[in-house]
Amino acid sequence: MYDIDAVRRDFPILSREVYGRPLVYLDNGASAQKPKVVIDAIADLYGQGYANVHRGLHYLSNQATDRYEAVRGTIQRFLGAAHEDEILFTTGSTMGINMVSYGWAEPRIEPGDEIVLSVMEHHANIIPWHFLRERHGAVLKWVETAPDGSLDPNAVIEAIGPRTKLVAVTHMSNVLGTVVDVKAICAGARERGVPVLVDGSQAAVHMPVDVREIGCDFYAITGHKLYGPTGSGAIYIRRERTEEMRPFLGGGDMIREVTREVVSYNDPPHKFEAGTPGIAAMVGLGVAIDYMTGLGLDNIAAHEHSLRDYAAERLTGLNWLSVQGNAPEKGAIFSFTMSGGAHPHDISTVVDRKGVAVRAGHHCAQPLMKHLGVTATCRASFGLYNTKAEVDVLVDALETCHELFA
Amino acid sequence: MYDIDAVRRDFPILSREVYGRPLVYLDNGASAQKPKVVIDAIADLYGQGYANVHRGLHYLSNQATDRYEAVRGTIQRFLGAAHEDEILFTTGSTMGINMVSYGWAEPRIEPGDEIVLSVMEHHANIIPWHFLRERHGAVLKWVETAPDGSLDPNAVIEAIGPRTKLVAVTHMSNVLGTVVDVKAICAGARERGVPVLVDGSQAAVHMPVDVREIGCDFYAITGHKLYGPTGSGAIYIRRERTEEMRPFLGGGDMIREVTREVVSYNDPPHKFEAGTPGIAAMVGLGVAIDYMTGLGLDNIAAHEHSLRDYAAERLTGLNWLSVQGNAPEKGAIFSFTMSGGAHPHDISTVVDRKGVAVRAGHHCAQPLMKHLGVTATCRASFGLYNTKAEVDVLVDALETCHELFA
Repeated sequence: MYDIDAVRRDFPILSREVYGRPLVYLDNGASAQKPKVVIDAIADLYGQGYANVHRGLHYLSNQATDRYEAVRGTIQRFLGAAHEDEILFTTGSTMGINMVSYGWAEPRIEPGDEIVLSVMEHHANIIPWHFLRERHGAVLKWVETAPDGSLDPNAVIEAIGPRTKLVAVTHMSNVLGTVVDVKAICAGARERGVPVLVDGSQAAVHMPVDVREIGCDFYAITGHKLYGPTGSGAIYIRRERTEEMRPFLGGGDMIREVTREVVSYNDPPHKFEAGTPGIAAMVGLGVAIDYMTGLGLDNIAAHEHSLRDYAAERLTGLNWLSVQGNAPEKGAIFSFTMSGGAHPHDISTVVDRKGVAVRAGHHCAQPLMKHLGVTATCRASFGLYNTKAEVDVLVDALETCHELFA
Repeated sequence: MYDIDAVRRDFPILSREVYGRPLVYLDNGASAQKPKVVIDAIADLYGQGYANVHRGLHYLSNQATDRYEAVRGTIQRFLGAAHEDEILFTTGSTMGINMVSYGWAEPRIEPGDEIVLSVMEHHANIIPWHFLRERHGAVLKWVETAPDGSLDPNAVIEAIGPRTKLVAVTHMSNVLGTVVDVKAICAGARERGVPVLVDGSQAAVHMPVDVREIGCDFYAITGHKLYGPTGSGAIYIRRERTEEMRPFLGGGDMIREVTREVVSYNDPPHKFEAGTPGIAAMVGLGVAIDYMTGLGLDNIAAHEHSLRDYAAERLTGLNWLSVQGNAPEKGAIFSFTMSGGAHPHDISTVVDRKGVAVRAGHHCAQPLMKHLGVTATCRASFGLYNTKAEVDVLVDALETCHELFA
């Protein structure tokens, strides 16, 4: 049984007030709050067991290395990867996708080669490919979403041509909540010999993920959305692809031998992890994932599905509110605009005064905004600790806003 | 007055034991321990004031953004930079130097162009330039150190030729403690129109730094050595150089506008800071720097100089110990080998049993090891909380080791 009251008590910040009202945190799409076990793990590491990892032989260094490296197995199991060395530590999805762009794609791209992506990608899964367009003449091929915000896997597969080098697609839209059938996309792409990068920044937070079942080549996750520390993250890279990749960041730990003339590189994953890493952040991410799996990824998903259904019902009941995206497969992320004079920024500011944290803007998805015909939306995004009562507070706050601006 | 007992009480880990002995932490060159104010700042941020930065309009996001962005001014003052936008946030020196290599140097390098560096650079200030050699035909020109471990600034300046695009040099050797006269190097390089990157990973920990007085173009620091969190850091980049730089990491926050066809980029420093940053790490770094400046950078330096002098006296008194590097300008970092059968790894393991944490290995400086004619050294590196009594414990432990292996 999912004990939501107990879950909420695990998150210290949820008991605070904002403007004299209980905090209703609905900005999980941007970043999630952290359970006490994560906060405590960081304090414990720094307070009792800290040293740099890998290069030491002393007690504290060995202990810190063990705690840090154990997280690789935690993430391997979380994502269903076959091998630990397929898990590369990063500082988040942005770093992971840039690593693939610089390390795997760039050496393979000739002018005119194509990268296929959907119009609802986050900028983290757009700009690295724009770099390849600017610098190496790559062509970006965009696949449209349907009016309900869904993405037809066949449309993605059909966009693959003889010059396509990579498909880069989100598993869940950070704006619409649309869940993409990445398994079907990967199957079609594999038939055509084209690797697929999946941006799992949102999806891994809300549903169990199995990279082998999906069949992708790259799967990026970001720790701060997974109830873990900022500056933590990982990317799954299928072993054949790591073998093809050249190193991205240069520095300590990623080499085997350095002379004045040449360098030989370490084996994956260390080949792709240069310098002193975010040790405490990664240890904290391990604890956050353990926390999630302790609650049960299916239980979290079920809880969020009921929130999604309730929020959908309440929000679509407001006839002055226009909710973007109602794909059949959709997470608990709602982007909306209001008829009348209220700009999304106004909405955000008004509901903030009621203690409700939502986000307003382009959500780092400007091509999607243009596709939707809006410049910005207001977004309420739910997490494992949110409640139906909080949906009601949001709706009340939106009604106040509507009255103010009507 | 520098109250070392009070200082030590600020660091929770220093009261712990290792193998039943009080911890004597002399691995500061690899990473420093964290004062309680830093640990508490992270817990407070996550426990009471956390949200993603920059893109929100709600209370917590504004508050987190203010705390995060205030650190830019803290680092600006710490390094003596003229402008806040010359401070780019990174995850550490490795990231900072890679950013310069990919963003500034790579577009400028033609085959045969040279990068001048010293043989005592850390791999973080070697491998990014080896990448340019491997991928773009750059030539690495190495400047030797003198037998005492000092680096003649004129030798660096004389190595600059018409094809030299950049000088990349450490401000303080992580192996020898040698302090380099980077001001003289910068003056000579500027006359020849060549920018200078200074790796300040060690120096900024041990002495006041003023990038305008030094006259460098790039100055990299790393937070985890500055008593701050892992995954924090910054690089000073002179404004003219940021204007010449192309973006390195692509993602959210670093753009102004993105369409399917083109991207326009944000202004520096944000142009070079993609995606959700290490918010808590950077907030913690700000607190760490405030802590250091609160103690007084000159006071810290004076304390460490007296430790250096005492340690030099005691260690050179051991006629079976060979200390590497005794340059006139030298920080409290001692690398040594032992005559007889004790490998540096053995030394490290034996003294560890006495509670003394030192490092053994190549210290990510393999070209220097080769230059010194050793494969590894043992290194004791001191920080602001170390004491003369700890030097005595180290010496006692080394004597035990010598007896064991003699």
